[in-house]
Amino acid sequence: MSKLVAPHGGKGLVCCLLEGAERDAELKKAEGLKTIEISPRAKGDLIMMGIGGFSPLDGFMTKADWKGVCEKFLMADGTFWPVPVTLDTNDEDVKEGDEIALVHEGDVYATMKITEKYEMTEADKKWESEMVYKGEGEDSVDGKFWEVAMDDHPGVQMVMAQGKYNLAGPVKVLSEGDYAERFPGVYLTPTQIRAEMEKRGWSNVAALQLRNPMHRSHEFLAKIAIEVCDGCVIHSLIGNLKPGDIPGDVRIKCIQTLIDNYFVPENVINAGYPLDMRYAGPREGLLHATFRQNYGINNMLIGRDHAGVGDFYGLFEAQDIFERIPYTKEECPDPGKALLCKAMNIDWTFYCYKCDGMASMRTCPHTKEDRVILSGTKLRKALSEGTEVPDHFGRDEVLVLLREYYEGLTEKVEVKMQKAASGSDM
Amino acid sequence: MSKLVAPHGGKGLVCCLLEGAERDAELKKAEGLKTIEISPRAKGDLIMMGIGGFSPLDGFMTKADWKGVCEKFLMADGTFWPVPVTLDTNDEDVKEGDEIALVHEGDVYATMKITEKYEMTEADKKWESEMVYKGEGEDSVDGKFWEVAMDDHPGVQMVMAQGKYNLAGPVKVLSEGDYAERFPGVYLTPTQIRAEMEKRGWSNVAALQLRNPMHRSHEFLAKIAIEVCDGCVIHSLIGNLKPGDIPGDVRIKCIQTLIDNYFVPENVINAGYPLDMRYAGPREGLLHATFRQNYGINNMLIGRDHAGVGDFYGLFEAQDIFERIPYTKEECPDPGKALLCKAMNIDWTFYCYKCDGMASMRTCPHTKEDRVILSGTKLRKALSEGTEVPDHFGRDEVLVLLREYYEGLTEKVEVKMQKAASGSDM
Repeated sequence: MSKLVAPHGGKGLVCCLLEGAERDAELKKAEGLKTIEISPRAKGDLIMMGIGGFSPLDGFMTKADWKGVCEKFLMADGTFWPVPVTLDTNDEDVKEGDEIALVHEGDVYATMKITEKYEMTEADKKWESEMVYKGEGEDSVDGKFWEVAMDDHPGVQMVMAQGKYNLAGPVKVLSEGDYAERFPGVYLTPTQIRAEMEKRGWSNVAALQLRNPMHRSHEFLAKIAIEVCDGCVIHSLIGNLKPGDIPGDVRIKCIQTLIDNYFVPENVINAGYPLDMRYAGPREGLLHATFRQNYGINNMLIGRDHAGVGDFYGLFEAQDIFERIPYTKEECPDPGKALLCKAMNIDWTFYCYKCDGMASMRTCPHTKEDRVILSGTKLRKALSEGTEVPDHFGRDEVLVLLREYYEGLTEKVEVKMQKAASGSDM
Repeated sequence: MSKLVAPHGGKGLVCCLLEGAERDAELKKAEGLKTIEISPRAKGDLIMMGIGGFSPLDGFMTKADWKGVCEKFLMADGTFWPVPVTLDTNDEDVKEGDEIALVHEGDVYATMKITEKYEMTEADKKWESEMVYKGEGEDSVDGKFWEVAMDDHPGVQMVMAQGKYNLAGPVKVLSEGDYAERFPGVYLTPTQIRAEMEKRGWSNVAALQLRNPMHRSHEFLAKIAIEVCDGCVIHSLIGNLKPGDIPGDVRIKCIQTLIDNYFVPENVINAGYPLDMRYAGPREGLLHATFRQNYGINNMLIGRDHAGVGDFYGLFEAQDIFERIPYTKEECPDPGKALLCKAMNIDWTFYCYKCDGMASMRTCPHTKEDRVILSGTKLRKALSEGTEVPDHFGRDEVLVLLREYYEGLTEKVEVKMQKAASGSDM
């Protein structure tokens, strides 16, 4: 009997991926089906449904699910879920009852039985955007959300650009894409990570969400978790990011270098998951915890500006949302369908000269002048121009790799780098 | 409704201290009672019963309690308790049914109704010593316990020196001693600490047990707790220690100086509790957690060699014991009487030059040569002789105070210092 936290939703790992002969037969069948071209986001969602990362989902959401998730974080059957997992299309012809093939850039990722086709008006998309992407914190751009969202919020832009309909129904997943080849030993399924953690005897595990290279602040978060848990999974997004972000392979190499030089390897796992960024801010923090539960992780590290998008959210709104949504066993209408992975909140962290080490706003009483705080923009500038990065900000071994990457980039596309986007969720 | 952990035993805070007119009347009555001179340990136990620190105890243990506690950590009524709280005497005359006054160095601390007087043979004391003080870890002196215990184990020496009888029965406590005057603002009762924590909105709280000055390693433990809990109570033993240990007032001053310079004051409480050391090793770690629960604390920091006595226990035996005793809700025969304060285990900690900060064996992959590790003996030598203490071991502001103390001591009693005892539980 595993001591790890049970998968989300009370149905065990729900894996929609077909294998072997079954997969071959379904692929054959797909050749004869009408095809729908899907977004990169939907591709990631499908792979997660395939490997059990999105348990208990076994397909895209119905209108009732979509509405419940947007409005109160609950699917129609009472399962907690924080962001819509929907499939959009402009196709007028497909109809309920049809079986279709879901295709991305020429590859068939799944077949799907359409159980519901529902219209998504502009008003629906706007409502979804407000419910899912609008911040609530004092520091967020709550009041003037629509003034800036269409220009500056990639999550809202994606929703508003969706098609006229959503298609719901169960899927049979036929491909994990090229993640296993591109990230050998790092792209690990929930089953694989659970097996590794059980081998190591872990039961109380934290995850560090990363979509940027790992600096001292991130290292500090992981190490706090390692002090008080059995171990930490450094879990990087290896799907698509914004243009200008550092590619997955560079980030993974940086993390491995950091582990090799500054971690006790038995207490950490370097892994990646196949999703794209949704840019859903605090709600994405909840999604991070939800799918981490499927990976056997019961503590989600949430730091400063987790999954932040520009200035859209308060710096600690992703921590606060865990307090105010009906996700705990006690408050969820059906305790078996509540989120069991908890937030492990960590304050703003930095190196402090007076503290003589890493610290946070919760432990360090000193002033700004005593602390090493660097913006992502200034860091990228220093790395690309080869100028000094302040002491104690990052590890030399990692900075060397980043400099190499940025130098290569500068040579190739000078202009691209200037646009390098900011935004943090680590 | 308080969000803090409930007091141990399911009966709320059981406070046996009388106050006002009731106390005056009982003191008057005590003048006419037969008196029993009690040990300093019993004095501390009485004060704890007085202020609710030993809830649900309302007196000294019966033979059935004593036996159950030694044998299986459970009192006769199924309440978890890790070490005997008994009152010994050689008095042949007192008998069951008597009411007596309990006196220490001329002061009346309590009256007691004797409900049971039971013999403690040499064999009984030896059995208690083995059950309570003998280690189990591989590194402990398990095999040759009796060869060394009588010479070197202060806990065993205290038990073996006890009288021929134990007296059991409920007490009415009449004095808290001089702790409130000697440690103003630091000697705080469970009621006071709970009120302060509620005012601060804390519900998830850790305690750091201290009987030595606070160096970087202790600071690191407290700060890890502050990162993941609402706050940390730095809770020093202010009762009696071994000769050569640093007195409570000096230690408390060091801690306050450390807090003033290196902590965010809102996240920490500097407090003391009125017990003597029992030198019970791992079992004392459990006692630390048990009475902390009464103070509203639900996480007990347990580091390396917690409550250690010479080489009697494995370095992490006090962590291991929390795993193997029937204390959790699930395993305790009566869940309402289980220990609810959990161990927050932290590995061996130190400053590491390569890590560029504090680290532990769980996070630091480097070698002994990279780490600042100092024995208590070497430290005391450096402090008293005015030679350098290695960088990063302690905070300058604290070391200044310790140097002052040791210099004063050297001037007064040169020889005393040489005998300064070691032993750690921080």
